[in-house]
Amino acid sequence: MGFFKPVDYWKWAPREDLVSDDSYPDPSDPEAHIVAAMSRNLMRSLGDGAPWVLMEQTTVRVNWRERNVPKRPNEMRLWSYGAVARGAEGIMFFQWRQSKAGAEKYHSAMVPHVRMEDSRSWREVSRLGAELGKLDELLGARGEAETAILLDWESWWALELDSKPSTAVKMLEGIYSFYKPLYEANVPVDFAHPSSDLSSYRLVIAPSLYLVTDDSVQNIRRFVADGGSLLMSFFSGIVDGRDHIRLGGYPAPFRELLGLRIEDFVPMAAEEGNNLDAQDNGSFACRLWADLIHLEGAESLASYTDDFYAGTPAVTRNVFGEGAAYYLGTRPEERYTKSLLDRVYEEAGVRPTAEVPPGVDAVRRKTEDASFLFLLNHSQEAVEINLPGPGLDLLTRTEHDSNLFLDPLEVALLKERTIAQEPSPRARVTETG
Amino acid sequence: MGFFKPVDYWKWAPREDLVSDDSYPDPSDPEAHIVAAMSRNLMRSLGDGAPWVLMEQTTVRVNWRERNVPKRPNEMRLWSYGAVARGAEGIMFFQWRQSKAGAEKYHSAMVPHVRMEDSRSWREVSRLGAELGKLDELLGARGEAETAILLDWESWWALELDSKPSTAVKMLEGIYSFYKPLYEANVPVDFAHPSSDLSSYRLVIAPSLYLVTDDSVQNIRRFVADGGSLLMSFFSGIVDGRDHIRLGGYPAPFRELLGLRIEDFVPMAAEEGNNLDAQDNGSFACRLWADLIHLEGAESLASYTDDFYAGTPAVTRNVFGEGAAYYLGTRPEERYTKSLLDRVYEEAGVRPTAEVPPGVDAVRRKTEDASFLFLLNHSQEAVEINLPGPGLDLLTRTEHDSNLFLDPLEVALLKERTIAQEPSPRARVTETG
Amino acid sequence: MGFFKPVDYWKWAPREDLVSDDSYPDPSDPEAHIVAAMSRNLMRSLGDGAPWVLMEQTTVRVNWRERNVPKRPNEMRLWSYGAVARGAEGIMFFQWRQSKAGAEKYHSAMVPHVRMEDSRSWREVSRLGAELGKLDELLGARGEAETAILLDWESWWALELDSKPSTAVKMLEGIYSFYKPLYEANVPVDFAHPSSDLSSYRLVIAPSLYLVTDDSVQNIRRFVADGGSLLMSFFSGIVDGRDHIRLGGYPAPFRELLGLRIEDFVPMAAEEGNNLDAQDNGSFACRLWADLIHLEGAESLASYTDDFYAGTPAVTRNVFGEGAAYYLGTRPEERYTKSLLDRVYEEAGVRPTAEVPPGVDAVRRKTEDASFLFLLNHSQEAVEINLPGPGLDLLTRTEHDSNLFLDPLEVALLKERTIAQEPSPRARVTETG
Repeated sequence: MGFFKPVDYWKWAPREDLVSDDSYPDPSDPEAHIVAAMSRNLMRSLGDGAPWVLMEQTTVRVNWRERNVPKRPNEMRLWSYGAVARGAEGIMFFQWRQSKAGAEKYHSAMVPHVRMEDSRSWREVSRLGAELGKLDELLGARGEAETAILLDWESWWALELDSKPSTAVKMLEGIYSFYKPLYEANVPVDFAHPSSDLSSYRLVIAPSLYLVTDDSVQNIRRFVADGGSLLMSFFSGIVDGRDHIRLGGYPAPFRELLGLRIEDFVPMAAEEGNNLDAQDNGSFACRLWADLIHLEGAESLASYTDDFYAGTPAVTRNVFGEGAAYYLGTRPEERYTKSLLDRVYEEAGVRPTAEVPPGVDAVRRKTEDASFLFLLNHSQEAVEINLPGPGLDLLTRTEHDSNLFLDPLEVALLKERTIAQEPSPRARVTETG
Repeated sequence: MGFFKPVDYWKWAPREDLVSDDSYPDPSDPEAHIVAAMSRNLMRSLGDGAPWVLMEQTTVRVNWRERNVPKRPNEMRLWSYGAVARGAEGIMFFQWRQSKAGAEKYHSAMVPHVRMEDSRSWREVSRLGAELGKLDELLGARGEAETAILLDWESWWALELDSKPSTAVKMLEGIYSFYKPLYEANVPVDFAHPSSDLSSYRLVIAPSLYLVTDDSVQNIRRFVADGGSLLMSFFSGIVDGRDHIRLGGYPAPFRELLGLRIEDFVPMAAEEGNNLDAQDNGSFACRLWADLIHLEGAESLASYTDDFYAGTPAVTRNVFGEGAAYYLGTRPEERYTKSLLDRVYEEAGVRPTAEVPPGVDAVRRKTEDASFLFLLNHSQEAVEINLPGPGLDLLTRTEHDSNLFLDPLEVALLKERTIAQEPSPRARVTETG
Repeated sequence: MGFFKPVDYWKWAPREDLVSDDSYPDPSDPEAHIVAAMSRNLMRSLGDGAPWVLMEQTTVRVNWRERNVPKRPNEMRLWSYGAVARGAEGIMFFQWRQSKAGAEKYHSAMVPHVRMEDSRSWREVSRLGAELGKLDELLGARGEAETAILLDWESWWALELDSKPSTAVKMLEGIYSFYKPLYEANVPVDFAHPSSDLSSYRLVIAPSLYLVTDDSVQNIRRFVADGGSLLMSFFSGIVDGRDHIRLGGYPAPFRELLGLRIEDFVPMAAEEGNNLDAQDNGSFACRLWADLIHLEGAESLASYTDDFYAGTPAVTRNVFGEGAAYYLGTRPEERYTKSLLDRVYEEAGVRPTAEVPPGVDAVRRKTEDASFLFLLNHSQEAVEINLPGPGLDLLTRTEHDSNLFLDPLEVALLKERTIAQEPSPRARVTETG
């Protein structure tokens, strides 16, 4: 079900033997593979990195949308490896044999209505099955993320109740506004509950973390004080666990951490926007929301250019203990979020899995003595990839020294000759950033 | 009610003394007269060509749409003759006197709220009544169609259940995509049940005939084998009478007839499309649906140019027995349907009622010893019409030898001096088409 | 609640000690202040000019729209004076203290969540409170309107029942199509019931007064016969108090008064329009509705240019007794309504409160021996205003002789040195207009 609002996965996961997911991204959505990857990262995070199972997907088409656009050739295989790369150790399908009657007779299946040998559905699923059977050495290999996005169902539920400054603020849109640039930068990411142990992360992102308990507040403060980097966005820390306002100036529990106070919220109309003057970084559009920020120790990284609050800070940075806390008071265009994240990665010491061309998803899984690099070309162009080191493609059994070529929608799975070094410990953040 | 989905007219019609219809096309729809004509053809077909009655229409306006745009002057008369031309022998109205109170007080009537002599509604309806009273010699004259569109309520109901590859495939839109070019070419058309006697037709069109019984299958095969031309469109012959898939490769009961098999369906997203390369005929847009066709004896008349199935056939022709079966695997733009129909008319020996300027509807009714040609100018331009032969205009009592002029929204009803010849018998179709 | 359809305010008002209103115009609507002013005029009219109370408004934002755009700085004060100018003698707020919990915790308040001294909400409301406390001499001063718009809840209810020629005809849109040009011309206006005493007015406007009782008919006829000017728009006088058609040709009770009869209504489709040829005044677009008018004594001021009724009158003028009755058979673009009103003002002797730059709202209140001129700059530009005479700005305690400057969203409240003269009595209207 991916991100499913009605059920608090954090509460179920510890009681489950095995995390599993069903996944039906819409092939007509050009970002379907990114949306799917976000769910894969959540599944991996629910088991604290343990293997999980993609319990249901379709080979080609579903039957419950208005217009059930098919997966194009190779997309099913490519997306399946996107799950394996993120820790799935089982790839299963709904349904085995396409039924002759009933409500699901137009849902694609491994065994279709037409003769198996005449069918792309069967050819693709049998090829994938044959390949996966030869990848036993992957079993137990885990991902390693230095970045976490905070996710709390209680906050999600409270945020999306009505009678808000703006009911257009949606939890998943906020999360995705960060997840997509992280994905495109090949920065591995976990999801984490705000009160969970964050000490293994260098960077924590808190998108509109509206409701926070005292425990979560202390946990987030401690993370930054101990040297972590935090990137928090608007309408965070506003209410306690009972949905009561945390008085003392917004966002009361994080004012010291962020070095600011917010006088009031400025929801924007649907067709309305503003602009950010990001100093040397240029000018960017923003929309949806503006916080009226007063600095109390933070520095301003960008300010609004229009409306009655022109010139006031929109994006800030504050040193707190040994770490740094960034605050984003609006929803900027994607280009700005990327440039802000670039700065934060550098300060936090967060590194991408690999430097690859646009459209390529690079993900690593490791055991104690082996390292596996997945390279998935989601673009419609063939690409040349410079490898971080030599390796053996387990799918083609080909050795690659320093580079390889990937056709559109093609996959490489390298067993790396050199195991990537452990990252250096977190550096102490200073006022000069 | 025109085409009314809840009731299977074929089951009711044989038990009725007289077929009747009420008809309220929306005057703000520029194709309202074509939509109305399609219903007239159905009414005539229900009684197997017998006279029927237009039981209800409005003189000017209805009162139940959001904005009840009126019929323009002369439209009521013109549209009424469109019904008479298609076999109506009674033209009636809702309502006699416009009520002073109640929910229908703003529905136009023969006798309006204002003084009769001040009212276009009254002037138009009394003129029409005076004219119709003088047309007794028309009584019993019948139309003669060589083309039939297959219509089956069971298939309509099954097609529009949910959980389909695409619920955007609608029965009436499919029928209309053929009816409109037939109408504009002045090719007379009946509607027929798929299991009815088709032997009097040269051309049968089966738009998305999703559900077919074994009887219908045999009937359609026999029609083609005996020398008829069939034009079938996508998602036909998929299920049996219980909505169970007909296994054996889509469309199982018609594979031999059409000379092809369909691997799978490719529903398109709403904003998506593809293009047809129709060889010497040029390039055309298509949308909604694509069948993945493999030829098994048929020839390809057009193929897709884009997406993963580029180059595969979209439109095919197969000789079967003494006839030909065309298949259309997508929804092309109207321009292509017209050019395909032109080819099919020629092969099938289907001829228009008359060669008239665009916007003119030409319809013939005949008795054993008389022939009546209706000429209805639905355009906003005056037109000159070259007649197929001399005749007497029964409305103006004017003789016309070889041509006549029609003002916008004007009608001529010629009693023809020469009765059109019986068409030649169906020719045997050959591989060279 | 402003214009609230379910309750007939005219029936409640005489039984109330004090008229009060709550008012939440949407700050994202660029005409919010005009919409608000229209409600203020209604509140003043309900008590027959007596003082009333603005019982509820918000300082900055509400919490029940999807996106609760705030009032910009100074808008709350400016809009509050818009109410005072129209007779409000109390300006109150929902809510005193912003609640910490519950459904209204994001509704702005006089005492906000954040520290009072950090809050624009508090600064603005305390400034306004301090100012209002010093304006005791305004108490009891009343507005003086020479123009009335007829408003009848019974007609509103009947008009907006379904099964109409066009359900797109909405009461408030019709009223606003006149109110806005009156407001922008600074012509003071009352709302009045059609059966109330109209003798104090020079001009009465009847927008789509669909339902009229016999009493109202006589009252309106008497008003014109006695020298008043009437401007009536389409679909007026159609039914009696039981929603029964008034037979005898539309609009039966006003045919003699207007000097015309209407053959039928022509509702327009949503995307449809027509054009007006207004003789020397130029050409204008119109939409929504056209009456098919036949003159019976009236003169035509503008006629349609398109469709089957091209050339027929759209706007007419008829002398009746000592007055004049104008009729508008369509919904013209605003530019035309303004030019028509300019003509009517001149004939009726209606004068604006003051001649001020665009965007400035000028409103006067008077006692027996004092006159107060409110000047409210709703534009985003600073303006220079030429005063009708010298006066003392009660807010700044500054004397102004002949002109003053107003910043954007700024207010002046002049106690005028010279009390405006009583208007001359109504002149007798003649055929030459």
